[in-house]
Amino acid sequence: MNTTGKVIRCRAAILWKPGTPLSIEEIEVAPPKVKEVRIKIVATGLCGTEMKMLANKIPHNNYPIILGHEGAGIVESVGEGVSTVKTGDKVITLFLPQCGECTSCVNPGGNFCIQFKQSETGLMSDGTSRFTCKGKPVYHFGNTSTFSEYTVIKEISVTKIDAVAPLEKVCLVSCGFSTGYGAAITTAKVTPRSTCAVFGLGGVGLSVIMGCKAAGAARIIGVDINKDKFEKAKEVGATECINPQDYKKPIQEVLFDMTGAGVEFCFEVIGNPETVVAALASCHESHGVCVIVGLLTAGVQLNISGRLFFSGRSLKGSVLGGWKSRQDVSKLVSDYMAKKFNLDPLITHTLNLDKINEAVELMKTGKCIRCVLLL
Amino acid sequence: MNTTGKVIRCRAAILWKPGTPLSIEEIEVAPPKVKEVRIKIVATGLCGTEMKMLANKIPHNNYPIILGHEGAGIVESVGEGVSTVKTGDKVITLFLPQCGECTSCVNPGGNFCIQFKQSETGLMSDGTSRFTCKGKPVYHFGNTSTFSEYTVIKEISVTKIDAVAPLEKVCLVSCGFSTGYGAAITTAKVTPRSTCAVFGLGGVGLSVIMGCKAAGAARIIGVDINKDKFEKAKEVGATECINPQDYKKPIQEVLFDMTGAGVEFCFEVIGNPETVVAALASCHESHGVCVIVGLLTAGVQLNISGRLFFSGRSLKGSVLGGWKSRQDVSKLVSDYMAKKFNLDPLITHTLNLDKINEAVELMKTGKCIRCVLLL
Repeated sequence: MNTTGKVIRCRAAILWKPGTPLSIEEIEVAPPKVKEVRIKIVATGLCGTEMKMLANKIPHNNYPIILGHEGAGIVESVGEGVSTVKTGDKVITLFLPQCGECTSCVNPGGNFCIQFKQSETGLMSDGTSRFTCKGKPVYHFGNTSTFSEYTVIKEISVTKIDAVAPLEKVCLVSCGFSTGYGAAITTAKVTPRSTCAVFGLGGVGLSVIMGCKAAGAARIIGVDINKDKFEKAKEVGATECINPQDYKKPIQEVLFDMTGAGVEFCFEVIGNPETVVAALASCHESHGVCVIVGLLTAGVQLNISGRLFFSGRSLKGSVLGGWKSRQDVSKLVSDYMAKKFNLDPLITHTLNLDKINEAVELMKTGKCIRCVLLL
Repeated sequence: MNTTGKVIRCRAAILWKPGTPLSIEEIEVAPPKVKEVRIKIVATGLCGTEMKMLANKIPHNNYPIILGHEGAGIVESVGEGVSTVKTGDKVITLFLPQCGECTSCVNPGGNFCIQFKQSETGLMSDGTSRFTCKGKPVYHFGNTSTFSEYTVIKEISVTKIDAVAPLEKVCLVSCGFSTGYGAAITTAKVTPRSTCAVFGLGGVGLSVIMGCKAAGAARIIGVDINKDKFEKAKEVGATECINPQDYKKPIQEVLFDMTGAGVEFCFEVIGNPETVVAALASCHESHGVCVIVGLLTAGVQLNISGRLFFSGRSLKGSVLGGWKSRQDVSKLVSDYMAKKFNLDPLITHTLNLDKINEAVELMKTGKCIRCVLLL
């Protein structure tokens, strides 16, 4: 059935208001407008950002909303002026656009496309939504809204991928995997034979470990207060794992004891201001680089001793692992197809969309690294 | 007269206790011990660090003390085991040693030699001083103590320079010039055609401007609350200068207005926690790099919104401009001799050592960039 130009009725998980469970509803998805793409989502991850949204830790006013950003699917139809993807293409959705024109996009060192901010309105560029449910407009989320069988996304937030890529795996390249892997490779530029530490061993933390390993790090120390996460961390490349609760000393002193002079690269993959400071203090005082990978929610202040910087340490932010989204995510999928990295260790659970609240509960237990939802 | 192996009596400026003026006294300088070098200081700068010491802003317990670290002189004699300099060599003194063996020295990206810390004792490696005055031992400062006609320094804190280099100029390569110039070139790695801002237009700030210019920056914005400093800043390369007091908006908003998207490289050359945060906030949100060049005294906390890092900004410490002291300072002097940069704009005053308190007062007025003291 050709649905081009028509409204599509399908199912989506809706968050009607803060602090409530997600609700599977029938919605209407309008056709894509100029420079927009309508996508049949095949698989989507449930990422830490959604967990923070559901826990009401990220202030937000756009309700009802369709969350979800770690998606992969197939282009159903394209709006006027779309030239880089066509109906039938396999694509990955990108919470971080790449307009190719802003000062971030044109700089070789930047990836935070200015168009990201438009997504915070929860609306498309024309100021309207493509979703309705029970007659009410529903907000978009993160340029993507992948918790829906069909979604409409701006062309600059979509990238075409290898036609034979398994969407139920590579959806993680949309965000979680790339965020961690790139933090090590692109942002920190981990060097061969170096010593690294990774604070927080969820899906993104494990991906940081994979990046450190791929970059040739000699020693990768996993740090987490849940020791159940250690086995998996070692499976993907951690050379040792420690639980800060097993020590009386602050974790930075423990890491100095273990390494003699601190770690060369340290990654905070939790999003907690205290652990960011501990991660920076764990770095080698001269050339240590600390990367903030965890999402610090709005209003969070870092209180850092100025002396930590005196001797040369660096503290870096990183979004989507520093990758330029459209060009690099597509390449990362090709790298996956070439078996340069393995996503299987990250995917502990796979559920259908209607089990999404079960997936949320699984994530809370800490036993689930990533739950991929199939639509 | 051959003084090798003998105690030398000479003049030095002594700080007897916190908050008092410097006092020119006759002192005794013992011969150098193993791996030490005795140097006839010919010229020394008066650096911001000494100004902070004299204002009692850097907590310190070693009194009486001979300050001074920005020195150049001639080797008078060497202790046992010294192999890299000999009597008669022109040398520069280095507050930051380069032992060549510690984890900082062996890492290509590090320069904060672990032996720096030994200097904080105010004593040589054997736990004693080489200075006495009126029968009392006098503490060393910063591995160097250049406010003395003769000083004893560890070999790792001395570097041999071009035999025809003018010591009354190149003494600034010991610290102030290199600290600023390297912050731009080595730490920030300023890129061609970039936009830079420099907060604080003293001698080090001017050297940052020279570094930005040498690196090919297209736009270099000087920022200072003393507009008398603007002319000199423009002379060395600033394309424009602004006074934050001329605006109602915070300086970071002014810089965003001026540049559209923030500066790519920003340098804080004051040592104030509020201006460090403003400098970071002035950077491009995606790829902006802020370098802390100013000395943040012990106990100073930086209170930074975590959101400043979210989109990719970096905050870097820098000591001695990131240069590996012995190897790079010597090369910088060669660069000076090859006219790759000019030190003249930095040297506004030259006085004899016995006028050192006059030099201190000149520095306080803000009319003096650098006062070189001749011994």
